[in-house]
Amino acid sequence: MPKTTKKDRPVILITNDDGVMAPGILSLVEAVKDLGKVVVVAPDKPQSGMGHAITIGLPLRLHPVEIFEGVEAWQCSGTPVDCVKLAVDKVLRRKPDICLSGINHGANHSINVIYSGTMSAAVEAAIESIPSAGFSLLDHSVEADFTGARKFARIIVQQMLKTKLDKHTVLNVNIPAVPVELIKGIRICKQAYAKYEEDFIERNDPNGKKYFWLTGEFVNFDKGKDADVWALEHNYVSVVPVQFDLTNYALKAKLEKSWKF
Amino acid sequence: MPKTTKKDRPVILITNDDGVMAPGILSLVEAVKDLGKVVVVAPDKPQSGMGHAITIGLPLRLHPVEIFEGVEAWQCSGTPVDCVKLAVDKVLRRKPDICLSGINHGANHSINVIYSGTMSAAVEAAIESIPSAGFSLLDHSVEADFTGARKFARIIVQQMLKTKLDKHTVLNVNIPAVPVELIKGIRICKQAYAKYEEDFIERNDPNGKKYFWLTGEFVNFDKGKDADVWALEHNYVSVVPVQFDLTNYALKAKLEKSWKF
Repeated sequence: MPKTTKKDRPVILITNDDGVMAPGILSLVEAVKDLGKVVVVAPDKPQSGMGHAITIGLPLRLHPVEIFEGVEAWQCSGTPVDCVKLAVDKVLRRKPDICLSGINHGANHSINVIYSGTMSAAVEAAIESIPSAGFSLLDHSVEADFTGARKFARIIVQQMLKTKLDKHTVLNVNIPAVPVELIKGIRICKQAYAKYEEDFIERNDPNGKKYFWLTGEFVNFDKGKDADVWALEHNYVSVVPVQFDLTNYALKAKLEKSWKF
Repeated sequence: MPKTTKKDRPVILITNDDGVMAPGILSLVEAVKDLGKVVVVAPDKPQSGMGHAITIGLPLRLHPVEIFEGVEAWQCSGTPVDCVKLAVDKVLRRKPDICLSGINHGANHSINVIYSGTMSAAVEAAIESIPSAGFSLLDHSVEADFTGARKFARIIVQQMLKTKLDKHTVLNVNIPAVPVELIKGIRICKQAYAKYEEDFIERNDPNGKKYFWLTGEFVNFDKGKDADVWALEHNYVSVVPVQFDLTNYALKAKLEKSWKF
């Protein structure tokens, strides 16, 4: 298959996990649409909490939609990861220059990167050798103010486009939920060690059978000033470079020495 | 809540992503049930490809099941990650000493760790400060021969129980699909860089509308002898220590120097 020759304008693939109708993806399209040829392929319904899920055993649907003025857009019945795979194979028929995911309605800092559909799409792109970034605003509400998120997403994408990025680059970008004039700037960070202290609320259904609702309180154990949670608490945009080689090399070296079978 | 005092026998939580009825989980229970007090909490249906999904917006069900002789077992309507969370909070009401996931019907080496429900359960346990391991046999079939997998899972769990493991330890264990006498031993490995070269098969439904089936050919780009794919191809059991801090520290240092906003 002959590879499409690269035009001057970079091809920017945009996806998300809140679905193609979410205000956040519209904000991302608006923030960057003059920076390249933007194509949207996003889920047709919200997919939050899907982690790095892919659709096996079910066929996928893909339909063109007219939502974004002057921007080619498709909705897909699958997960964010399915969207990236389908976009490259069936929509673009080439690799885009970069892939952007978001802007997510809600935080994906610290350990949330692991559960995040937004970030899984970005990671999938990087596995496919497409530099990528996921953007998340620390505000769940549908009426969230994306002004600051738009401004800083644009600054970061401009920086990405003018940098010679490694093809496996993934950036996890989170934006504090404060008025844009209070955002102090951008910090390159590490992923904070934080987790959810789970609590399941127990209820009985009308037949007297128990069921559980997952709830959880977020607890940050990482007070370091180079951690993303610190940056966000101090009104900075956090940028965590992410990798998909999960090997714990320090433990590998230790076990190689100490474990004899 | 008073913490249950630790008994001499370690508490071993077992889960999987193929569902509580899968032969693989029975093999894992049989392999280790005399090494501690084993409790099973596993999905009530297969959850393959669910990645690190959690159930949001739907209540979870949890029912005791009698499947494993002399072993307490529960089935849960959620994902493998839900199972770990519910097990700690509602079944054990304490942290188990270790958590085991599997034995998965199919490989989870190399990049598959990212998509794997089996490994997501193990990673979730490690986030919760429970040392853990996920086990996968390189054979998808329901009639797969788990003899080698059982033998080596037992050896590795014995090693885990006699080692003072860091509480965030996660091991990704894969077992080659060959007769047990051909398995040469166990190797501590790194995650190979490999990926799926996707191909979507395009079909038309009875109404003439297109749909797609995800297919893909696995391609290994990593020929290193310390990579898990090499070990498995040479009939070794591969053990990759895994981490959940996804920060790319090398790129972090580089961007801190070169990116000025």
